[in-house]
Amino acid sequence: MHVTIGDPQLPSVCSHHVSDTETRTQAIGHDLLRDARRRGSGEPWLDRLLMYQGMKDEQVKAELFRFVDVLPTLTHDRQITAHLKEYLGTVATRLPPFAATALRMLPDGGMLGGIVADVARLGATRMARRFIAASDLPGAIEAVESLRARNLAFTIDLLGEAVLSIVEARRYQGLYLKLIEGLSAASKSWPHNALVDEDPSAGPAANGKSSGAAGVMPPVNVSVKLSSLYSQFDPIDPDGTSREVRDQLRPILRLARNCGVFVNIDMEQFSYKDVTLQIFKEVFEEPEFRDWPHVGIAIQAYLTSSGDDLRDLANWAERRGTPVWVRLVKGAYWDYETVIAAQNDWPIPVFTEKAATDANFEKLTTFLFDHHQWLRPAIASHNIRSIAHALAEAEARELPPGSFEFQMLFGMAEPIKATLIELGHRVRVYTPFGQLLPGMAYLVRRLLENTSNESFLKAGFADNVSEERLLMNPTNVKSGARTSTSASSLRHEAGGTTPRFRNEPLTDFTRPENRTAMRSALDAARRRLGETLPIVIGGRRIETGRWVDSVNPAWRGEIVARGAAATAEIATSAIDIARDAFPAWRDTPAGQRADLLRKVALILRRDKFALAALEVFETGKQWREADADIAEAIDFCHFCADEMQRLTRPHRRDIPGEDNEYFYEPRGVAVVIAPWNFPLAILCGMTAAALVAGNTVIMKPAEQSPAVSARLMDAFEEAGVPKGVVNYLPGIGEEVGPVLVKHPDTSLIAFTGSRAVGMLIARQAAELAEGQEQIKRVIAELGGKNAVIVDDDADLDEAVHGVVASAFGYSGQKCSACSRVIVLDSVYETFLSRLVESTRSLEIGPAENPGYYLGPVIDDEAQRRILAMIDRARRQSRLAYQADVSALASEGSYVPPTIFADVSPSASIAQEEVFGPVLAVIRAADLTDALRIANGTKYALTGGLFSRSPANIDRVRREFRVGNLYINRKITGALVDRQPFGGFKLSGVGSKAGGPDYLQQFLIPRVITENTLRRGFAPAVDE
Amino acid sequence: MHVTIGDPQLPSVCSHHVSDTETRTQAIGHDLLRDARRRGSGEPWLDRLLMYQGMKDEQVKAELFRFVDVLPTLTHDRQITAHLKEYLGTVATRLPPFAATALRMLPDGGMLGGIVADVARLGATRMARRFIAASDLPGAIEAVESLRARNLAFTIDLLGEAVLSIVEARRYQGLYLKLIEGLSAASKSWPHNALVDEDPSAGPAANGKSSGAAGVMPPVNVSVKLSSLYSQFDPIDPDGTSREVRDQLRPILRLARNCGVFVNIDMEQFSYKDVTLQIFKEVFEEPEFRDWPHVGIAIQAYLTSSGDDLRDLANWAERRGTPVWVRLVKGAYWDYETVIAAQNDWPIPVFTEKAATDANFEKLTTFLFDHHQWLRPAIASHNIRSIAHALAEAEARELPPGSFEFQMLFGMAEPIKATLIELGHRVRVYTPFGQLLPGMAYLVRRLLENTSNESFLKAGFADNVSEERLLMNPTNVKSGARTSTSASSLRHEAGGTTPRFRNEPLTDFTRPENRTAMRSALDAARRRLGETLPIVIGGRRIETGRWVDSVNPAWRGEIVARGAAATAEIATSAIDIARDAFPAWRDTPAGQRADLLRKVALILRRDKFALAALEVFETGKQWREADADIAEAIDFCHFCADEMQRLTRPHRRDIPGEDNEYFYEPRGVAVVIAPWNFPLAILCGMTAAALVAGNTVIMKPAEQSPAVSARLMDAFEEAGVPKGVVNYLPGIGEEVGPVLVKHPDTSLIAFTGSRAVGMLIARQAAELAEGQEQIKRVIAELGGKNAVIVDDDADLDEAVHGVVASAFGYSGQKCSACSRVIVLDSVYETFLSRLVESTRSLEIGPAENPGYYLGPVIDDEAQRRILAMIDRARRQSRLAYQADVSALASEGSYVPPTIFADVSPSASIAQEEVFGPVLAVIRAADLTDALRIANGTKYALTGGLFSRSPANIDRVRREFRVGNLYINRKITGALVDRQPFGGFKLSGVGSKAGGPDYLQQFLIPRVITENTLRRGFAPAVDE
Repeated sequence: MHVTIGDPQLPSVCSHHVSDTETRTQAIGHDLLRDARRRGSGEPWLDRLLMYQGMKDEQVKAELFRFVDVLPTLTHDRQITAHLKEYLGTVATRLPPFAATALRMLPDGGMLGGIVADVARLGATRMARRFIAASDLPGAIEAVESLRARNLAFTIDLLGEAVLSIVEARRYQGLYLKLIEGLSAASKSWPHNALVDEDPSAGPAANGKSSGAAGVMPPVNVSVKLSSLYSQFDPIDPDGTSREVRDQLRPILRLARNCGVFVNIDMEQFSYKDVTLQIFKEVFEEPEFRDWPHVGIAIQAYLTSSGDDLRDLANWAERRGTPVWVRLVKGAYWDYETVIAAQNDWPIPVFTEKAATDANFEKLTTFLFDHHQWLRPAIASHNIRSIAHALAEAEARELPPGSFEFQMLFGMAEPIKATLIELGHRVRVYTPFGQLLPGMAYLVRRLLENTSNESFLKAGFADNVSEERLLMNPTNVKSGARTSTSASSLRHEAGGTTPRFRNEPLTDFTRPENRTAMRSALDAARRRLGETLPIVIGGRRIETGRWVDSVNPAWRGEIVARGAAATAEIATSAIDIARDAFPAWRDTPAGQRADLLRKVALILRRDKFALAALEVFETGKQWREADADIAEAIDFCHFCADEMQRLTRPHRRDIPGEDNEYFYEPRGVAVVIAPWNFPLAILCGMTAAALVAGNTVIMKPAEQSPAVSARLMDAFEEAGVPKGVVNYLPGIGEEVGPVLVKHPDTSLIAFTGSRAVGMLIARQAAELAEGQEQIKRVIAELGGKNAVIVDDDADLDEAVHGVVASAFGYSGQKCSACSRVIVLDSVYETFLSRLVESTRSLEIGPAENPGYYLGPVIDDEAQRRILAMIDRARRQSRLAYQADVSALASEGSYVPPTIFADVSPSASIAQEEVFGPVLAVIRAADLTDALRIANGTKYALTGGLFSRSPANIDRVRREFRVGNLYINRKITGALVDRQPFGGFKLSGVGSKAGGPDYLQQFLIPRVITENTLRRGFAPAVDE
Repeated sequence: MHVTIGDPQLPSVCSHHVSDTETRTQAIGHDLLRDARRRGSGEPWLDRLLMYQGMKDEQVKAELFRFVDVLPTLTHDRQITAHLKEYLGTVATRLPPFAATALRMLPDGGMLGGIVADVARLGATRMARRFIAASDLPGAIEAVESLRARNLAFTIDLLGEAVLSIVEARRYQGLYLKLIEGLSAASKSWPHNALVDEDPSAGPAANGKSSGAAGVMPPVNVSVKLSSLYSQFDPIDPDGTSREVRDQLRPILRLARNCGVFVNIDMEQFSYKDVTLQIFKEVFEEPEFRDWPHVGIAIQAYLTSSGDDLRDLANWAERRGTPVWVRLVKGAYWDYETVIAAQNDWPIPVFTEKAATDANFEKLTTFLFDHHQWLRPAIASHNIRSIAHALAEAEARELPPGSFEFQMLFGMAEPIKATLIELGHRVRVYTPFGQLLPGMAYLVRRLLENTSNESFLKAGFADNVSEERLLMNPTNVKSGARTSTSASSLRHEAGGTTPRFRNEPLTDFTRPENRTAMRSALDAARRRLGETLPIVIGGRRIETGRWVDSVNPAWRGEIVARGAAATAEIATSAIDIARDAFPAWRDTPAGQRADLLRKVALILRRDKFALAALEVFETGKQWREADADIAEAIDFCHFCADEMQRLTRPHRRDIPGEDNEYFYEPRGVAVVIAPWNFPLAILCGMTAAALVAGNTVIMKPAEQSPAVSARLMDAFEEAGVPKGVVNYLPGIGEEVGPVLVKHPDTSLIAFTGSRAVGMLIARQAAELAEGQEQIKRVIAELGGKNAVIVDDDADLDEAVHGVVASAFGYSGQKCSACSRVIVLDSVYETFLSRLVESTRSLEIGPAENPGYYLGPVIDDEAQRRILAMIDRARRQSRLAYQADVSALASEGSYVPPTIFADVSPSASIAQEEVFGPVLAVIRAADLTDALRIANGTKYALTGGLFSRSPANIDRVRREFRVGNLYINRKITGALVDRQPFGGFKLSGVGSKAGGPDYLQQFLIPRVITENTLRRGFAPAVDE
């Protein structure tokens, strides 16, 4: 039989057939539904859950599930009652009266507290046991045997924590191997069950080749999550990720095939989808596995791209010559995917309406049945309509039961399972097993699913919705937008209450076209290396004969560019020219100045990859880091433009006979002294603010990043900035900095950099120079000694991941970077060991290759300075981990990621800014102690907390006094407008770049009062 | 016939009579109206005026009238066309199409421009001549003779500019004398006219005493404005004003009586009303004038207090024993009175509805007729309903024509005049004469009146409104709020679009109860002089044995108080205590902190007079200045409280899965260093801002004003500020200032004072002290060298008055004071001479006595410094005027008001801040030159412009770069919120006290980002 691979997005059958199918779907659906409802009109536990009034309130539900989430990590009774009170306390007013009263009376500890804790624990455990088959292998074997006894097939799933290190990945590999071995051994004793173990369509494939053991369906079936096999799983580097994952996967596959075990590859979040499919295809094309039919992969119908993926998979399977199974699911990460897309302003990868997903599920089902020769359908749904539709499709093709199968979750939809078995279909139960702690994510997902208003089970068996509605053809459902919590908040966002400003989306390097663009940009940038960069003053290009070389930190031999070294005389003349250019620029309408910035933004966006590529070479930024720097520069342009237009609307206080207007004017000549670590964004942000406010600017870039900053100068010129309004003055800071700062005509200095230089500038600016006519304004963002507190109930998966990203991302060369992690005693050891192992797993090398997590530090001087600090610290503190970068020593300025443990809060490594990949781990007795340590430096820039205690979060919000505090996420990566950035104490003057008060610093407020009363007569106040 | 003085607010007749009167009023009214309409259905010039479409648009009308107002001062054709274009240009879109086109094509100069200028001049002159009888005495005589020929009586009115000096007042006195003499001489030849010259009710008065020439009404009648006789006319000192005015008035009265001339005292604005009545009564009680019946006074029915005044006048006249005439008018300053009341937040003294004024006019008419024995009715109205009502009242009492009279304005209501004459009534024409320039105020008032929708003449003769509506009883008119421009804007104000904040009203010293309260407060303050003021730290009172004496600058022998002199040790411990008090205060909810300020405001308001009285003694502030200082302190409390509550609402950027909150926290310990010149307001403002933001405060008051500042400390304590949160540290600036500024725990310094000290503080604060953990914030308001530009078309009445107030108010001891006046060449000499004479007329002496315009400077040190500057200036510049204060030399620290003329812009007196009563007058060639000079100092605090050119106003708004620019008013007296105050360049750091950005300086912004996504599930974003 010859099969053409059709387009699943188009109806693959004629309309006559459609209506036939629909008629049959309805008939089968009614039968199934009646039969299932007869078997169980509802599940008692679900009824009880839904009876609870609070479950109808999305916020109460959220708090309850958050409590369930944290529960397994709580070791003391007192902790459990405290958390219960804290979570429900935040929604106390929304609780039913009895619950609110009970909550108030809840004891903290004592016997009664212990009982409450036991009840909570017991309740959660019981609930978990409904969905999680067992906590160990023997239990899992027992569970699957009992399923088989009920004529149910199974696939076993290993619940797990996030894999943060090689050690953890190896452990998972080992677990899979043990699981396969153990189940396989046990299966020897299992009686053959035709319903479960036979596949009538297997045997010689249509093309005549063998497609595996004829008629047999392996009794043992294991689901594998690829991300558990490699801690550095990252779609930015799909080939590297595939290579590493396949290395870890092969032993598992070999054992499975040898034991006759079926292996299904699970699908996780959208960003992993492409690389998961790539790995699946690559590994099962390998000669060793090419003819193995007992493998499968999950496809998520809620993804709008799933049709394409399925068609591609069908083509691939045909090429491969052996069919694979496809577990067609709707998808379990809808909230997550929509939130991530909203946060990044990326296209939403899922259908936003539930009915569209259901309709797509049916389309894909039809496609699978059309291509069942290569893609064997495993219809994974609890929705009787979806099931009935699949049965109708099978019926239309006269496919026998067992040549396709149904899959359902453990502990759910029991009446439907029974009904299908009775009809002679194979029903495979997705059977998770594992410890309660790693199982919580799974449990919460199931609870959410069951209590969702879109749950078929809730509608069909608890709410007793009419058959007609339950079986309605989803293709016909037009309205009925998905009502889930997050969807509604997305709509709320779109509803116009959000500010106009939108952050520039980061490039999604998951998409192959973006990776290709980046690679070409890197090639182009490399060809251009070594260019010379003259000074630009008043539109004139000036060279001085002296050069400051910008060197690729990953490869000392590579000169990225040569910046002309400005002299003191040139610096003085730059100020003179900027002063002369000031009046005309000041008098240019603010709207025009804002438009200029918007033009610059367009240019930067156009050149995004080229600029990012240059940063990779000049400053050793990783792809995502470099891309984020460009995006932030674009953001600053738009934000400053918007803000200026906001501030241009005068603040009026008109009364009869008197007009009062409060408005802003620029200050004059702005000197912008920028660092190299965000070579475009910070320079652009300070310059954009100064410029749009109407000041003229001298850009003094860091010595290490003249090339990227020269591109910014180019962008300003291309956008049409008048001559002299923006000037580019590369050079040695010590030579030109003081000249610029002390010049009597300098009005303001915007500086981002080290504390020492910042304080020097403040002192110099406070001196009144001869002929000076204004008090200089200094805007300074200085260093940090940023700490993350890890609470005893923190989600350590997230804490370790967040701390590693905050401390070692871009080698810690961010003022926001984490350089201290303060861990509560009870989780200290666990955290530390996972942290060390996670750090050990980081790949180090040139940023050019996206597979490396971190690269060199900026230059040899920084390297020497940081290594010296590490040396000093070794005398005071215990070295817990230091990477070995000796292999790279000859190439670039590498500093090994280094972790000191048990560090004293007063140790210099816990007090002095390092600006490199060095992390001090400090033990705290309790949260009070942790806060004392966290606040115990002269800096107050960023800080973080990982905790799941609402009370502790609340306390840390108040008491951890830093400019930017982040809860339960990394502490770097502030976005313009969303996270206005800047610190106080000795970290800065308390301004916040990208915030509502930033632009004012570049402006002077003025007031004009006009007496409009003349001859006792005042004109009307305009409305 | 016995007359009881009834209450004019109650109907003086029974309701039966009322309806009788109403019936007759209607009957008479219909007859009058028909007759008058027969005579002239409309006046052609008015028709033409009203035909012009633009006149229906309030804004076009306003611009046209403003053009008319400035026209006489314009000497060149080019000026006239330019002004016409400028005024109408602002409303070009509202003009009828032909006018807009004409405007666009209007030539600037040349022959055509000259023609346009001529036409404008001619038009305005023609219009003016309709209302202004003549421009000189012969013309006036001719005019009144022609009136007599038409059987009309007259009263002659001398149009005048504002009287700004003794010279000008004397000139007016002379003019009145000449007028009386001239008219009297002319009248010898006038034939007797029974209708005009006889008064049937005159002759032996009811009480038997002679009340003047029997049956005779003097043919010559002169109206006198009292304010023209004394440049320092001020109701704050009614006795002094009365004394001086009566001295000037007596020669006029004597001559008039001798010549048989009637003298009527005109009524001006409301604030002059009480003192005018007082002078009237006092002078006509003098034996010389007591039995003179040919005198009168105007009473304005639109004043809600007019009934009381009339009753009082009737009682007084009865006591006096000779009747007086009362000219009952409705009142011509309605817009002005409502605007002034709105601006000051004082009770509106006038009825806000036109019908209420009309109804009151009838009540007062009835009262006059009831008391015609003592108050002879002169019914001054063009409203036929009002006239008919008066006639009905006269008829009811059978009073013959001539025993009362009607008065109308020159050039208006001619048909009504004719009708009344025909009925045998005396109609007196209010006949102004004078030059076009001073006549403009009068002309504009008339134009406004005639084009107002409430004008009876417009309604009756141009719009032809029905008789019924025209004659409607005003008492029955319920709705129909006054539709005048300013009234609608007042309502607009009340409509809720204005911000919640309301300025504390200044005390209206026109009101006797306020003067009495101030006098008692001064007595009480004097009794308390000499008290000792300990330091207050952490709630503890500390004395050091050393004292800084606060001396009354007007009386060296008087020690106001003795402030304890703090030591460096005490200063250090004050910071320590404030630092310790900080955490608890920081954690006090902002609302509670705001409430504390509101309590302080209540205390200050309660103690307003006591505090003001203390300032009079301690800092030599005049009553109004002292009162304004207290009001401003109250304003700061409320404003900071409101602002803090505004800033407490967090700025959120929540997105799905991520909550972002931007909020503010206090900085720590604030050192507030305040000056003595606004001893309460500035100290309170800086302290309130620091405090409400959550900082703890050390108040370091000026050495010269420890007593007032100690009262502020008391107020904070009384309001319940926690110990240590506000501390009071009097002492020598040089001793404790640097200690406070340099202390490592000082977070911010708020300083108002001299530039030298401010720059020193900035330098000291930029040094990083040992143990310092934060970058210090310095908020500094420093000096000024403020200029006022006087344009060539300025209203010099206003310019001289505004400059004198700005330069010499509180002896120039304000950072906002005017110390340079830059005058355009063409008006330089005129302005200078009026300025000098005006300054010469200022009374100098202790502030205690409200009759003195200015007093001493703060202390002997200041006196020596200022005198030395004057001495130096004399060597560079021409002394145009210097007062003689030698008589006061032994009493206090007096500095004579001093004016230098022809000052070079670069002279030190034009560049250095004086902080005393010294003014440099600088000549400018044109506006460009003036702006160059104005901007040509290192300061940029306040500035001013007097101009009536919209284009020049616009240019100066843009190009005169100062913190606070004032157009056509004085440049001192900024109000919180309405005029946020502060400068830039070397005048300050660009913050503005009382403005929307002020409080932020005392705060640090923080951002908290919480990842709310857990297990792929994010709670809903709260709406």
